[in-house]
Amino acid sequence: MHRRSARLADGREIIYFDRTSERERPPADQRDLPTRTAVSRVRYDATTGDWVMVAGHRQTRNFAPGADDCPLCPSREGHLTEIPAADYEVVVFENRFPALTTDELVADSITPQSGLPLLHEAAAAGRCEVVCFSSDHDTTFAELKADHVRLVVDAWTDRTRVLSALAGVAQVFCFENRGAEMGVSQPHPHGQIYAFPFVTTRTSRMLNQARAYRNAHDRNLFDDLLDAEIADGRRVVRATDEWVAFVPFAARWPYEVHLYPRHRSRDLTRMDEAHRDAFAAIYLDMLQRFERLFDIPTPYVSAWHQAPAASAGADEFAVHLELFTNRRSSERMKVLGGTEVAMGAFSNDVGPEQAVLRLREVGD
Amino acid sequence: MHRRSARLADGREIIYFDRTSERERPPADQRDLPTRTAVSRVRYDATTGDWVMVAGHRQTRNFAPGADDCPLCPSREGHLTEIPAADYEVVVFENRFPALTTDELVADSITPQSGLPLLHEAAAAGRCEVVCFSSDHDTTFAELKADHVRLVVDAWTDRTRVLSALAGVAQVFCFENRGAEMGVSQPHPHGQIYAFPFVTTRTSRMLNQARAYRNAHDRNLFDDLLDAEIADGRRVVRATDEWVAFVPFAARWPYEVHLYPRHRSRDLTRMDEAHRDAFAAIYLDMLQRFERLFDIPTPYVSAWHQAPAASAGADEFAVHLELFTNRRSSERMKVLGGTEVAMGAFSNDVGPEQAVLRLREVGD
Repeated sequence: MHRRSARLADGREIIYFDRTSERERPPADQRDLPTRTAVSRVRYDATTGDWVMVAGHRQTRNFAPGADDCPLCPSREGHLTEIPAADYEVVVFENRFPALTTDELVADSITPQSGLPLLHEAAAAGRCEVVCFSSDHDTTFAELKADHVRLVVDAWTDRTRVLSALAGVAQVFCFENRGAEMGVSQPHPHGQIYAFPFVTTRTSRMLNQARAYRNAHDRNLFDDLLDAEIADGRRVVRATDEWVAFVPFAARWPYEVHLYPRHRSRDLTRMDEAHRDAFAAIYLDMLQRFERLFDIPTPYVSAWHQAPAASAGADEFAVHLELFTNRRSSERMKVLGGTEVAMGAFSNDVGPEQAVLRLREVGD
Repeated sequence: MHRRSARLADGREIIYFDRTSERERPPADQRDLPTRTAVSRVRYDATTGDWVMVAGHRQTRNFAPGADDCPLCPSREGHLTEIPAADYEVVVFENRFPALTTDELVADSITPQSGLPLLHEAAAAGRCEVVCFSSDHDTTFAELKADHVRLVVDAWTDRTRVLSALAGVAQVFCFENRGAEMGVSQPHPHGQIYAFPFVTTRTSRMLNQARAYRNAHDRNLFDDLLDAEIADGRRVVRATDEWVAFVPFAARWPYEVHLYPRHRSRDLTRMDEAHRDAFAAIYLDMLQRFERLFDIPTPYVSAWHQAPAASAGADEFAVHLELFTNRRSSERMKVLGGTEVAMGAFSNDVGPEQAVLRLREVGD
């Protein structure tokens, strides 16, 4: 993997990831962009312990431009995009409308929750990046070649390492929202990376569970859970020498698959080469199954869960990917209502054992 | 308030709430309904501590029948509905397609989390009820009269008391999902009540926060937070002698209002008459403001947060109502993506201080 870093016209970083080192120096951004003004803050919800990103300026961002105006395609004569180059393999750049920015990284620091005042806010320190998976506007992640996916894995890994090392960053989150149903404003195949200044609610809860399990059993929660799913077998979609893909026992979504490497590591930077290499095959397989679930393209969220950069008990964490769709059938979506969004109590109308049958059926 | 309980043809309970006692004995259900078969289970997610309701049979329920077929209107000649009576004020009945049912209340018990096996499920004990706010198909909660709202409060209170006392019920949740954007399948004005066999994630986290605050400050979290919001004043939409309505400092949603009684109690059954009486005026005001936010009806979730029926530290809880919409503007919805649904990290694109200006502007 080869990386080349450059700056866009307004100072944002752009990083090109390539399989070979033969490419030229990145071209300069020819656009005349306004200076970014970041007004984001993060606020602490004393009633729950959640952090909320308050980002008033994002209300005005563009929505779904046509393919001719795609800001994620390579630049060409008369159409300058976010990527100055005429072509690219995988490229990452700072989001123009970020919820979190490095501009204020050291303006405030987020202290442990016990010491916070009731109405506490801090600078929304961190970074929001866009990952273009391919220069081809009309492809999808599911259609990428395995060696191209490997390059994406390297990009995610690089960003996890670099962003984790930034002062003030607590956690790096690599993900893809796919489909308008998931709020995606750009059809060009891309994902996002958030470098949060706080440990997110879900990760914090996972660490608490792992810690409690260690205290109770002196064993690792994720290791035992993966073993239990393999031993049970009823929800395993596919297992390879390196990876296991299963519908989790307590799936929240109509179709949900978790991908765990057989050897646990806390984040992508610590995953060994064999697992990194083998990821493409099983992930592409799962995405392709998702594509065949319905008569229409399947919206999904694909989320890398990683340990926080530095947090007590982070070594108990198991890096894994959670892939799910909020579509129940070709006609119907799972809409989150009061039980889910107000109380966090999901109901799964398909059921894990039904979902896995369908996911096996749509395999090759 | 007067209540009359009866049974529907398939054995489900129906309860009529009226302001006077002059009404007759509820008529019998003339329909021939199939026996209910409950196949729901609740499953424990060992990675997060969440409980998930797995309810396969709900996939087949009806969606949005026309007004002529409304199952929530009173019954009339040739059109028998869920409510056998020819008219009603407020009526509550057991959901025909429940995620939770009393049929299995004592089949399993949910033990404390530390003792659970990794793949643990239990009967989905509990109850799901429908609350019809009015017999008028074409009205909305926002259009109800104050004394009618008071009757709804009495119905919520009655259900909280009765359902909390059922063996196996851990928590009673009264809420309204309003609008197709919130997944509402019936336009007739109605809400729902879930009697959960577990303490929901969000309530559990609130109790943890209140407990930690008590330990640190020997004071009540909710009391101090309400005082802090009143003292700050920037996000208060309206305050009366009994209630305060404010946009919370760390609002997760584009427009979100929390309604707290000035005197704390842990649930609706312990709220005094003065606060019960005064609720209608401020709540109707907030709903009417919500209605004026956009060019189209505002979808919303309105959620009563109450202490669990029996839980350590439940007396630290403060019953309150959280009202919010996922609509950002007449054209745009807030769609939950990876940061929210995978990590629990919300970004609020409007901002609490902007939202409150708009909510004040659309007041009378």
